[in-house]
Amino acid sequence: MLQSPKAPYVRLRIERAASSSFSRADIIGAVRREYASGRLPAGSRMPPVRVLQHQLGISKNTAQEAYEELIADGVLTNRKRLGYFVDAPRKHQRIHTPTPASIATIKMSFAAVAPARAPRQGRKPIDLGSVFIERDILPMQKLAQCFRAVLRDSGLRADYDRQGFAPLRHLIAQRLVKRGIPARADDVIITTGSQQALDIVTRALDCKAVATESPAYGIAKLLFEMNQMRVSALPLDPFKGADLDRWRETIAAARPAIMYVTSSFQNPTGYSYSTAELMQLLELSQEFQCGIVEDDWGSDMLSFSEFRPPLRALGGEHVLYVNSFTKKLLPSLRIGYLLANEATREPLLAAKQVATLANPPIIDAVLYEFISRGYYDAHLRSLQAELDVRYKACLDALSATMPPEVRWTTPGGGPVLWLELPPRVDIQKLAAELATKDVRVDLRTASWFVGEPHLNGLRIGYASLPTQRLRQGLDLLGRAVKRALA
Amino acid sequence: MLQSPKAPYVRLRIERAASSSFSRADIIGAVRREYASGRLPAGSRMPPVRVLQHQLGISKNTAQEAYEELIADGVLTNRKRLGYFVDAPRKHQRIHTPTPASIATIKMSFAAVAPARAPRQGRKPIDLGSVFIERDILPMQKLAQCFRAVLRDSGLRADYDRQGFAPLRHLIAQRLVKRGIPARADDVIITTGSQQALDIVTRALDCKAVATESPAYGIAKLLFEMNQMRVSALPLDPFKGADLDRWRETIAAARPAIMYVTSSFQNPTGYSYSTAELMQLLELSQEFQCGIVEDDWGSDMLSFSEFRPPLRALGGEHVLYVNSFTKKLLPSLRIGYLLANEATREPLLAAKQVATLANPPIIDAVLYEFISRGYYDAHLRSLQAELDVRYKACLDALSATMPPEVRWTTPGGGPVLWLELPPRVDIQKLAAELATKDVRVDLRTASWFVGEPHLNGLRIGYASLPTQRLRQGLDLLGRAVKRALA
Repeated sequence: MLQSPKAPYVRLRIERAASSSFSRADIIGAVRREYASGRLPAGSRMPPVRVLQHQLGISKNTAQEAYEELIADGVLTNRKRLGYFVDAPRKHQRIHTPTPASIATIKMSFAAVAPARAPRQGRKPIDLGSVFIERDILPMQKLAQCFRAVLRDSGLRADYDRQGFAPLRHLIAQRLVKRGIPARADDVIITTGSQQALDIVTRALDCKAVATESPAYGIAKLLFEMNQMRVSALPLDPFKGADLDRWRETIAAARPAIMYVTSSFQNPTGYSYSTAELMQLLELSQEFQCGIVEDDWGSDMLSFSEFRPPLRALGGEHVLYVNSFTKKLLPSLRIGYLLANEATREPLLAAKQVATLANPPIIDAVLYEFISRGYYDAHLRSLQAELDVRYKACLDALSATMPPEVRWTTPGGGPVLWLELPPRVDIQKLAAELATKDVRVDLRTASWFVGEPHLNGLRIGYASLPTQRLRQGLDLLGRAVKRALA
Repeated sequence: MLQSPKAPYVRLRIERAASSSFSRADIIGAVRREYASGRLPAGSRMPPVRVLQHQLGISKNTAQEAYEELIADGVLTNRKRLGYFVDAPRKHQRIHTPTPASIATIKMSFAAVAPARAPRQGRKPIDLGSVFIERDILPMQKLAQCFRAVLRDSGLRADYDRQGFAPLRHLIAQRLVKRGIPARADDVIITTGSQQALDIVTRALDCKAVATESPAYGIAKLLFEMNQMRVSALPLDPFKGADLDRWRETIAAARPAIMYVTSSFQNPTGYSYSTAELMQLLELSQEFQCGIVEDDWGSDMLSFSEFRPPLRALGGEHVLYVNSFTKKLLPSLRIGYLLANEATREPLLAAKQVATLANPPIIDAVLYEFISRGYYDAHLRSLQAELDVRYKACLDALSATMPPEVRWTTPGGGPVLWLELPPRVDIQKLAAELATKDVRVDLRTASWFVGEPHLNGLRIGYASLPTQRLRQGLDLLGRAVKRALA
């Protein structure tokens, strides 16, 4: 019964005159009408007899007789073994295929965005600006083990939950509670990385104004702009902290719906807020009825497996909390989550549902397995230890190579620090010179300021490079800076 | 060196007075300033000495001496073996933790959306309205094999491509070419199901007006509404086809950026457009410069492995083409794709990138493996054969059970048909009565009309049920309809 596909056949709309069943006349009428419209391409293959038979629930004879009559009319021809075809067009019946409108030329607006750089194996240039963790210190083998375990134990599932795999949500809630953040599995929403978490928050907001740190995590800033939000700057200096007087003025004037804040190891500056600053953010939130969206991507990367209370712990359930497993565990897993509360959960789920319906539950199940086996905590401990080694090597290399006019921050954990250069160093030129020596710095940093940049520096990512290459890269950077200052 | 986490410690911002290194005075100054602000909770644990030492790159003595001096000041206390703590507050220094603003009460707007129903195993009620394919005819074992093969051969990858796994994009393009759709891998964008494809298209549009079939695929309609599009109705009657005069009027008046059209087995009606209708849609597109977004979820589910040219084949590369592997292969994979063109690719990629950055590449790799091994074509053939059996059983059961006033469509493929009831049948009441007999019909259908419903019917999903249960369910439905008409 099954055959390999042939040439595509023409589509017909066949109505039945009587409500009960299809007649020969219904088929003939349908074909004549379509043919007469001048929009049935000549030479097209007709639906095969067995298809009509099956589709309409008619006998083979009815279908065949209808086609024979259409041949007599000159509408169809029969090509032996190939089937019935629309006859060559008559007189003026040249089929013209209209060219539809191009969506691009008339209506599309977005500019190109530079692709996010994910870690790659064994590449030549020394990338000093990457925020990613080096592939070699990620637990690929253990994750593959967990994939195999999930496939063996429960197999694949067909269904999905728009909120994310329930056992994983329970596990995440438990872990948050252990850290002093009251959390219920019901309020955890699994997302495609923290990026989707931010997306669905901004989509669900009624008020299209948002305030963000400047410099900001670049793709968050882009997201806000592309979601048509008005974006205000909350200036952050990685040496002096948040300029909270300016924040206050901005929030009072712009009345944003939310402020987006990365409490630990902010990207790109590496800055972590002090407890006193976090308390002031809560005060601002209360005073101006401005919501807080806290991105806590970094606190798991704190030295010596210590931790510090994030905004959600200090301010309670009204702080919308975002975290992710992508950077710390494996970027390609694309799992993040939101901790909402009873009032925000449903609007956020609705936004997630129209965006992607759900995420692949097998990834959630693998992560559940990975955490349950204790692999995640073990990985975090060894990751932190490795980051500590690289951090120290980075500080040492900077002390050894940088001239006295250059300053850098001391985040004490996480994957990046901020290197501030004297204003007279032209970073574009510096980057061009470094490129000739196979050293790459991240020039997108400059575009991450909201408004005018108040810094003239670089994000240095010490997690993405083995110590030896980091030292090499910083040595070349130090020489280039010295030349620029000479 | 590594220890299990203790109580969280307070966050401090410590500046250095000299640019070179941190002094005891820097630490003392920082703690005094934070303490004096009245926002440093009494009883908080201070950063451990070894943390300060590591973070600031100072000696243990410097840190310890600073803390000792702060104890002498009465700012800190030392608890044996537990570390240094902020002393109890003095006089008026009661720490007040402000309650931040609740995002929900002030700014969130979206209403709850009914969860999408995914197929579940062995459930009691007979669900007559499901658009899903029954789990038992999905190739779970072969997919699990492919997962294992991917884990074994290439292992997990850390990186991802915002456009999707390149080998999969090449394979998809090749398959499209075989079907008469010119396609380049560069123009294929992998998405989280067709839902994300629709989302990024609407996000990338400059003009916030869209026209959609009515009744429409419900979550697409919701998406348009939640993306703040103005939505116009393109009325579709599953018996008479598209009312193209009305379409023309609507498009002329509303000037939508795009019309969203499902060319085969439209959801919820099961309707497939005739070639003559598709040509007219291309004409409308050209005349009013209205783009076309074609959802081709259904054509792979055509009887006897035949196929018919979709709009993209007829109209060329300006038609934006959407397809997905989720329904036909496995809903929980969440893979769909867009076929764009050179002009639309970048704006669409930018929209995808801010939405989710990328999808998990392992799922793409598994799908690549599955298609490469020929499993997908084999699956489609057996799926089509099984759908044909269920379709015929459904038509037979309807003929046997429905009173003459009831009509139904004959899609000839796909997972659903439309059952139209006489206007005097109250579908809400009918559904309530059926629920008492453990039969479920999809009442969301009514909400899928844009404007006033012009139909009074139900979507019947024959793919989600084994034949025996389908017959049972339709028998109960037939009896209930007869009672309603009596």
